[in-house]
Amino acid sequence: MKSLLLVAHGSRRAESNAEIAELTERLAGKASTDFDVVEHAFLELATPSIPEGIQRCIDQGATSVNVVPYFLACGTHVADDIPEQVAIKQTEHPELDIRIADYLGTSDELVDVLLKLAH
Amino acid sequence: MKSLLLVAHGSRRAESNAEIAELTERLAGKASTDFDVVEHAFLELATPSIPEGIQRCIDQGATSVNVVPYFLACGTHVADDIPEQVAIKQTEHPELDIRIADYLGTSDELVDVLLKLAH
Repeated sequence: MKSLLLVAHGSRRAESNAEIAELTERLAGKASTDFDVVEHAFLELATPSIPEGIQRCIDQGATSVNVVPYFLACGTHVADDIPEQVAIKQTEHPELDIRIADYLGTSDELVDVLLKLAH
Repeated sequence: MKSLLLVAHGSRRAESNAEIAELTERLAGKASTDFDVVEHAFLELATPSIPEGIQRCIDQGATSVNVVPYFLACGTHVADDIPEQVAIKQTEHPELDIRIADYLGTSDELVDVLLKLAH
């Protein structure tokens, strides 16, 4: 059973974290044929944490977790912090197929999205 | 003459700022029929600043500037800081048509972009 875990930075502002929860609901609505479970997690400042988010996927029967970093730049968070937190759960569940996708900022399609916003 | 100014946060990491410059080049390549000038600017930690970015557009003959915030969440930066810096140039150039577009995180299309990254 496949799962997708959207990972955002997390904010002190509840509204920002709520935006991520709402985005995750929209993802779940569109992902249903590809991913049986869609959850979100935050790197810091908010919950669920990344290990908690992965656990939520496991609790719903996931055998694979595709972690998608909702980040625009490849800083320490993307390069080190997310992989470190993912590794905690991978060690606990060696049978789980966990992959980290390219972060949002790598997508070529952002060009089209930005041009559409500009209009 | 229309211009587009992509506004990113700015980073201490030169590579992150270079990613924005590279994205701006790709935007310019696709925007040519809609925007005669495409520039980028940073809110903090890097140059050009937002007023400098707007000035670059003006120097190339822009009569309108469409500011596109490259931000995922609507925090103080999007709500207050970008409008404040834009207002500095609007006061200097009252004839200039400056608009601030919705920030990247508002785009419905991010759902599709994220699903594509997950595959």
